[in-house]
Amino acid sequence: MSKLKMAVLPDPDGSAADVARRAGAEVVGLDEAEALAWTTSATAEFPAALPDSIRWVQLPSAGVEQWLDAGIIDDARTWTAAIGAYAAPVAEHALLLLLAGLRRMPDCVRATTWSKSELMPQVGTLGGAAVAIIGCGSIGRALIPPLRALGAEVVAVTRSGRDVPGAARTLAAADSGEVWSQADHVVIAAPATSDTRHLVGRDQLSRMRPGAWLVNVARGSVVDTDALVGALDEGRIGGAALDVTDPEPLPDDHPLWTHPRAIITPHIANPAVTLRRGFHERLAHNIAEHLAGRRPAGTVDLVRGY
Amino acid sequence: MSKLKMAVLPDPDGSAADVARRAGAEVVGLDEAEALAWTTSATAEFPAALPDSIRWVQLPSAGVEQWLDAGIIDDARTWTAAIGAYAAPVAEHALLLLLAGLRRMPDCVRATTWSKSELMPQVGTLGGAAVAIIGCGSIGRALIPPLRALGAEVVAVTRSGRDVPGAARTLAAADSGEVWSQADHVVIAAPATSDTRHLVGRDQLSRMRPGAWLVNVARGSVVDTDALVGALDEGRIGGAALDVTDPEPLPDDHPLWTHPRAIITPHIANPAVTLRRGFHERLAHNIAEHLAGRRPAGTVDLVRGY
Repeated sequence: MSKLKMAVLPDPDGSAADVARRAGAEVVGLDEAEALAWTTSATAEFPAALPDSIRWVQLPSAGVEQWLDAGIIDDARTWTAAIGAYAAPVAEHALLLLLAGLRRMPDCVRATTWSKSELMPQVGTLGGAAVAIIGCGSIGRALIPPLRALGAEVVAVTRSGRDVPGAARTLAAADSGEVWSQADHVVIAAPATSDTRHLVGRDQLSRMRPGAWLVNVARGSVVDTDALVGALDEGRIGGAALDVTDPEPLPDDHPLWTHPRAIITPHIANPAVTLRRGFHERLAHNIAEHLAGRRPAGTVDLVRGY
Repeated sequence: MSKLKMAVLPDPDGSAADVARRAGAEVVGLDEAEALAWTTSATAEFPAALPDSIRWVQLPSAGVEQWLDAGIIDDARTWTAAIGAYAAPVAEHALLLLLAGLRRMPDCVRATTWSKSELMPQVGTLGGAAVAIIGCGSIGRALIPPLRALGAEVVAVTRSGRDVPGAARTLAAADSGEVWSQADHVVIAAPATSDTRHLVGRDQLSRMRPGAWLVNVARGSVVDTDALVGALDEGRIGGAALDVTDPEPLPDDHPLWTHPRAIITPHIANPAVTLRRGFHERLAHNIAEHLAGRRPAGTVDLVRGY
C-alpha cells in the first residue's frame, strides 16, 4: 500500500505526526505533501495559501463556520472537519448542564449554609421528563442513551425529520413549532449556519414551559442572547445553561455571569483531554479511509455550510 | 379480597391515604388499624407506643438508622423501609455530583470572566474512566446504566461480592482494598451501619488517585470528615462532592463550604417531587403485596441494621 504524504502542522509536541505515521502516512513538509492535518483551532496561523498539491485538509474543529468566515475553506480540494469526533464529551457536558440546572447546582455552590428546606421543593429530576434535542446529529445522538438511562424521554428535531434511533419522536425542523411548549427541557445541538441563527428567540422562549431549562452546547449564535436575558429576567423559563455564548467570549460585565438562573461554562464541553483523543482518533481513521480509497468522515459541504 | 385496615399518618394533604385506598386499604384510625403508613421522616412525631394490633409499619425513609437509633423500630411487628424507592433520583444526583466535580462546575459558577484557557486543561471526562461504586444496592445499580452510557466502566463493591449486572467487576467488601488505587473515581452508596462507619478514612483517601473525585450520596458517617478535609487541603485527591455530611446539617463555619475542591448539596438527592412519587409507589406496591400474602419490599432486618 502506498503511503500518503501528509504535512502535520503546527503539532508542537509531534503527537499528531506520530498518529499519522502509525496510520500509514509519511509525514513530510507542506511543499511535498498531498494532504495536510492542521492541529489547532487557531485560524489566524493557517497558511495564507496552500500548494495546489494539497488535495485534502483535515481540520481539528467540529463546527467549521469560523474557517468558512475566514475564507480558508475553498472548493479547490477536500476539507474534512472533525464533526462527530467530540460527540461523546460534548453530550456528557450537555447532560451535566441540564442536571446542574434542574438540581440547582449554582445555589448549592454559592451556599455557605445548609439550605435543605428551601431547596428540596425546587429540585427537579430527569426521571419522566421530556427533553427536546434541537439538531440531533452526532452530539444529540450521543446524548440520547444517558438521558434514557435516567428515565427521560427524547424528542429529536432534525432537518429531515427522519426517525432518530432512541428518540420517542422525531420532528422535522420545519414542523417543530409545537416542541417548545411540549418539552420539559430543551437542548440545542444544531450546527451554526445562516438557517440556525437565532433559532431560539423571543417567540420560542415565550412558548417554553415555566420550569424549562435551555441548554446550549452548539454555537452561541443559535440563541438570541438579548431575548434570553429578557426571558430569564422575567422568570419565564426555569433557566439557561450555556457552554457557548454570543458574543463569545462573554464580556466581563454581561448580566448572564451573575444571573441566579444562568449557568455559563466557557466553551469547555470538549476539554483538552478529549479534544486531543478525539482528533487523533479521527485523523487515524481518515488516513485509513483515504488509503483505502474511501471518502473520509466529516467532508465539508460548502453549500450546506458544515 | 378483604381490605387491609391501615392508618395513614400524619399525611396532612390526604394524598397518601388516597394512594392507600386505591391500592385496596381501608383507611382507619390508629386504634383500629392492622398497619400504619407513616409519611414523614420526622422521628420525633412518631407515636410513643403503637397498639399491639399494628402488625406492619411502612416508613418513608430509605435508610432507617435514625429510626433504629431513636428506638422506634422494635421486634414486635414487621417494619418496612422505602429502601430502593428513591434509587433513580439518588443515582441521578450522584451522576451530577461526579460530573460537576470532574468538569469543574464550581469554578464555572463562581467565575465572572471567561476562563477557557485556564479550565480546558483541568476538565475531565467520564469517557473511559473507571468508577468504583462502594455499596452497590439499588442506588448503585441505578447508577450503572447512565455511567455506561457515558463510556465509563464500573467496579462494584458489595458485601457478598456476587456479580452485579452491568459492572465490569464486582469485589466483595472484604477483598476490595485495591479498589481505592485502581478507580479513577469513587461513589459511596452503602447503607449507614456500624460496619460502614468511616469506611472512607485517611488510609483509603491516601490510596486514591491524585485526580479522583469522591462522591457520597449514602450517609455522612461513611466518610471520616476530618480525614477528608485533610486530603483536600493537601490536594491528595481531585475533590469531594457530598450530598450527605457528618455532622449533618454541616455547620455554617465548616471548611467544606468554601473549599475550592468540595461540592456540598444539602441532602437533596431525593427531592420533594421524587420523595412523594417514590413513597406513594412503594406504599401502593406493599399494600398489594400484603393483600396477596407476599412479603412486602424493604423489610428491615434488625441484625443487619437496614
